Amino acid sequence: MNQPSSFRRYLDDLEAELRSVLGDNASPLYTMMRYHLGWVDEEGGTQPSPGKMSRPTLCLLACEAAGGDWHSALPAAAAVELIHNFSLIHDDIQDGSWERRHRPTVWKVWGEPQAINAGDAMYVLAQLALFRLDQKGVPLPKVILLSRRLNQASLQLCEGQYLDIEFERHLDITVDQYLDMIDKKTAALFAASLYFGALLGTDRQNQVSLLSSFGRNLGMAYQVQNDLQGIWGEEENVKAAPYTDIRSKKKTLPIVYALHTATGENREALLRIYGRQKITAADVGRVVRIIDGIGARGFAERMRDDYYRKCLKDLGKALPDSPAKRQISDVAAYLMGKGIDS
Amino acid sequence: MNQPSSFRRYLDDLEAELRSVLGDNASPLYTMMRYHLGWVDEEGGTQPSPGKMSRPTLCLLACEAAGGDWHSALPAAAAVELIHNFSLIHDDIQDGSWERRHRPTVWKVWGEPQAINAGDAMYVLAQLALFRLDQKGVPLPKVILLSRRLNQASLQLCEGQYLDIEFERHLDITVDQYLDMIDKKTAALFAASLYFGALLGTDRQNQVSLLSSFGRNLGMAYQVQNDLQGIWGEEENVKAAPYTDIRSKKKTLPIVYALHTATGENREALLRIYGRQKITAADVGRVVRIIDGIGARGFAERMRDDYYRKCLKDLGKALPDSPAKRQISDVAAYLMGKGIDS
Repeated sequence: MNQPSSFRRYLDDLEAELRSVLGDNASPLYTMMRYHLGWVDEEGGTQPSPGKMSRPTLCLLACEAAGGDWHSALPAAAAVELIHNFSLIHDDIQDGSWERRHRPTVWKVWGEPQAINAGDAMYVLAQLALFRLDQKGVPLPKVILLSRRLNQASLQLCEGQYLDIEFERHLDITVDQYLDMIDKKTAALFAASLYFGALLGTDRQNQVSLLSSFGRNLGMAYQVQNDLQGIWGEEENVKAAPYTDIRSKKKTLPIVYALHTATGENREALLRIYGRQKITAADVGRVVRIIDGIGARGFAERMRDDYYRKCLKDLGKALPDSPAKRQISDVAAYLMGKGIDS
Repeated sequence: MNQPSSFRRYLDDLEAELRSVLGDNASPLYTMMRYHLGWVDEEGGTQPSPGKMSRPTLCLLACEAAGGDWHSALPAAAAVELIHNFSLIHDDIQDGSWERRHRPTVWKVWGEPQAINAGDAMYVLAQLALFRLDQKGVPLPKVILLSRRLNQASLQLCEGQYLDIEFERHLDITVDQYLDMIDKKTAALFAASLYFGALLGTDRQNQVSLLSSFGRNLGMAYQVQNDLQGIWGEEENVKAAPYTDIRSKKKTLPIVYALHTATGENREALLRIYGRQKITAADVGRVVRIIDGIGARGFAERMRDDYYRKCLKDLGKALPDSPAKRQISDVAAYLMGKGIDS
């Protein structure tokens, strides 16, 4: 599965923007942030291992597709990437995750107290990154509008994260509750990324709304695709081993669906397994048989495809045909795990 | 020691502003924040136990003293209070503190993962609070200026917090390093509070700078006063029992000074005691005798008085005499633990 060329096209400028936001502060607090962003190793040496930067790439593409100069949207793209990464640093503490992108997580290297700090500082930098729009000649009312929207998306992210953690303690989450959670935790920032790019590219309110809606639906589809990968993903995909999320008892969409739909013995087995602290290899096999048997995979795939169709419809209505528009749909396909031509 | 009347004067409006920023969101994430702010108990019931609100009170006083209408500065005052409280929520996790204002800390009630979230959300709300200046008719360039400054102060706060945690692992902190740490961790937000109020009250740059400098010096004096209280404070003061900070092995100014100044046996004893995990009652007695013997208390008191004098000098230069100015100096005296007339 090739990465669309737009990722590579913006990468150098995006990274330069991000590096400039972090500046040359020598405090180890900044080393922690540079480490998390994949620029350096634990000692501050060079070991590049950056993230995919899907959100900022979509932001810049939206700006271009809406008729703007993507360079002027770089501060917004950087802000979005920093918000995403601040949430990952804290998320790794909250989940007790040891690894991210095949390296120890920030808290695993520097301890929880300092990792909380590094996340906080990255959130602050996201705010400061956005104000650089001012230097790009973006009018102040737009800067304020974007900053307010960035914070609203961040607040939704916190609310979604609250629900995600809270759901761990419950066995009776409905599919609607789950969708509300990922809407806040994942889709809100995708929507904001597209909104930012669009608003910096055009003043046509209708186009901005449609691209924002595209981002939201893509975010939903992407999260469900992640959920599917977390259970049935293959070696070359994002989540390595099969059944990863079952082994860690994550309550992603297929499990939420199963807990809600299974009956009789199946239901009792799921409640027993998900109600206990530990999960055995035999339990994993049992869960897989149950969720396969009741069509949880198919359900999640239909849900993903639904959101994906919706996002493509938004995109179709938002923009006339253009190379940038085709690149946006390439990125969307790539995030769905679909092969693309480029 | 009476609280100056200005605290009471602004309190209702300040709390109304803060409540309006939090809104009526029923998510328990907001209950956690309301609990931390002292408005409700753990179940969301009413149990008022709010903080002193020194920073927002100073912000509003600065606005008034500089000739402005303090009502227009309420959003900035609320933002400052929320930043302070976001940092306390995370600080309590980082320090593993069980109690704050005589109640269990947020993480102690809801667990670390959700407390991280509550702190994050409160930081976001601080940003959003500030944008309400727009509705008060504050010109956009000023709103942006204030928002940037709020974030710069927050970044310093993270940097100071990084140093504070890092210092726990070291026995060779210099007094200068310590002062740099509290400058970032405490004084930066005091400076910002005064800067905000002043800038919303006047366009005279010189007055804004002097009031900001007053805030910085007051913040330094206040932190050193806190350090003194943490060791020699009496029952009726903020930190209850005597020698609290010695029993918890906090490296506040008197200890930093002692570790740097003591020689021979004293130095060895301090290094031994502060190098171990646990501290015994005998150790506490020994530390107290050593730091008393080398004049650590007097050193810290002189440092505090120095900063206090500096801040009063700034205040004198910043403003002509007025009731608001006298109230500012009353608040400063109150924060130094000095009796006032009002």
